[in-house]
Amino acid sequence: MVVATQQTRISAGDLVQGVLDGQRLLLARTITRVENQDDDAAAMLAALYPHTGHAHIVGVTGAPGTGKSTLVTALARSYRHAGLTVGIVAIDPTSPFTGGALLGDRVRMRSLVGDPGVFVRSMATRGSLGGLSKTTGDVVTVLDAAGFDRVIVETVGVGQAEVEIASTAHTTLVVEAPGMGDEVQAIKAGILEIADVMVVNKADRPGVDKTVRALDMMLQIEGSGPRLIRHHGHLLRVETPAALAEDENRWQVTVMKTVAADGTGVSELRERIEAHRSWLQESGEMAIREQLRIANTLENIIRAELNRRILASLPAAKMDGMVEAIRRRETDPYTAAGEMLAHI
Amino acid sequence: MVVATQQTRISAGDLVQGVLDGQRLLLARTITRVENQDDDAAAMLAALYPHTGHAHIVGVTGAPGTGKSTLVTALARSYRHAGLTVGIVAIDPTSPFTGGALLGDRVRMRSLVGDPGVFVRSMATRGSLGGLSKTTGDVVTVLDAAGFDRVIVETVGVGQAEVEIASTAHTTLVVEAPGMGDEVQAIKAGILEIADVMVVNKADRPGVDKTVRALDMMLQIEGSGPRLIRHHGHLLRVETPAALAEDENRWQVTVMKTVAADGTGVSELRERIEAHRSWLQESGEMAIREQLRIANTLENIIRAELNRRILASLPAAKMDGMVEAIRRRETDPYTAAGEMLAHI
Repeated sequence: MVVATQQTRISAGDLVQGVLDGQRLLLARTITRVENQDDDAAAMLAALYPHTGHAHIVGVTGAPGTGKSTLVTALARSYRHAGLTVGIVAIDPTSPFTGGALLGDRVRMRSLVGDPGVFVRSMATRGSLGGLSKTTGDVVTVLDAAGFDRVIVETVGVGQAEVEIASTAHTTLVVEAPGMGDEVQAIKAGILEIADVMVVNKADRPGVDKTVRALDMMLQIEGSGPRLIRHHGHLLRVETPAALAEDENRWQVTVMKTVAADGTGVSELRERIEAHRSWLQESGEMAIREQLRIANTLENIIRAELNRRILASLPAAKMDGMVEAIRRRETDPYTAAGEMLAHI
Repeated sequence: MVVATQQTRISAGDLVQGVLDGQRLLLARTITRVENQDDDAAAMLAALYPHTGHAHIVGVTGAPGTGKSTLVTALARSYRHAGLTVGIVAIDPTSPFTGGALLGDRVRMRSLVGDPGVFVRSMATRGSLGGLSKTTGDVVTVLDAAGFDRVIVETVGVGQAEVEIASTAHTTLVVEAPGMGDEVQAIKAGILEIADVMVVNKADRPGVDKTVRALDMMLQIEGSGPRLIRHHGHLLRVETPAALAEDENRWQVTVMKTVAADGTGVSELRERIEAHRSWLQESGEMAIREQLRIANTLENIIRAELNRRILASLPAAKMDGMVEAIRRRETDPYTAAGEMLAHI
């Protein structure tokens, strides 16, 4: 057994072994190195990867104010009651996990602290642009290898970045709350396309039935389940509503009502997630999702590394000259970038 | 004069002319093409660029719930009273400009509608990962070329992406609100480093003096003004607190109190921004900020284009084979990416 102290830098091999042995301190340190993209991070991830594939990955996304974090907390507790271990990755700036919410949320979240079957990691979102998606995937890989039965990834549902992170989950929950014109926002963000389960949280609030009806109606119009899983590269998957309608074994996206703050509806939600998991395995859909997840991961790694190389290789003197010429309005960034690109 | 109809696709040249002539409809369409990264976007931006350099660019950032959008609205109105035109770019998912806020905010914002001296553009944040910063800069370029005196960029202050966007502004406001442990968060996000003016909004709330004192104290400890403007490449600029302390002409970051909802303190804030603008010009600091802005723009363009080329050039068959091998756990994404990179 490796004893971690502040003085020693633990070797990558010892960290990997610690993760596989379920040592929390070494798990935390491994994630830190992965987050910081330390030199040995890739080697550690490569060593951990063969041990992945056990965790079911649940993405939880939605607008700020829908109570996602409270729901994640309640869901984790529900999984614990069911005898399953849970890893949580929070990358929502409004989440109490990442430090952005009110005191009440923090208190609720605290109910998870001290349980060895739960591990919470918040992502600082301070990495380089576009690096968040890659790093999130890496942290999920570590938690999966560490043996957690379920890994919940909480993101604020506002942009392509978050949609991509959610779409690399096995099961994606989109959380709404009554009022605030959420149904309109859901359409706007294209977020319904990625939902496997819709959740109307804060269902003790007025207007809940109206919100549920609006979502139900949209699901009927739009067809159920992901029709389009976006992908940068070539593994694009498009399903027309017609093709979906013909498929009797398709997954039915349902709207679940929860009051995460007092636990109402949470065990039903957990069961629905588990039903989706079973469906993924029985329908063969799991293999497709895994392919997409892997292709995304692969591209993210390649892209991050190429970005690093490119920026390191830009000739500094030439760049400085161009910046000055642009500042004098002798040229413009678009023309200058074209010239630069011609030399790469 | 070009008459825009839904039927015709307006040429890039006509759009550029329309922007320079101050035609709102053509301005809106130009921005849409720039946002969508249409084929002719780079050419339009290149044509518009020589007409930029007039606008003073104000970044407004801060955590959700600090009332940034209300403040931006009030600030825009204040600028209008002072006879200046204002372009607004909102990339905050919690902003009423981008559709994420409560009804009251929307009503306040509506006071700007119908004023030809104000143009509001919300960014959908749906572009590719890492593309947001580039696209924001492009939209600012269009608004600058269109002749707006001030361009306000509103971002939620939560991560590196937003910090970078804000750091490409001439003057950056960091907005806080009383309570909620904001002072701690400001440190955490490293956001004080980028503030030219600190604003405590919602200053009619309890705890405002405590928040102001905490911020004042931090500013004294940390030193005033940006000490480090982060940069991917080589134009890194670091100022030690000692060097700053010796510089008598340095900018003094102050903490301003506002109640944006009723306009209290907003004209004083506007005057403070204008004072910063004068200081930038008189101290020669403006040239340095422009260099950083341009270098960032240049790198973002190069990076975006290279990313596009890279993803297009990845051999599909080989990628598919690798994805399958990874899925079978015969290899892992990190090793596979390394092999792929060896061939690029």
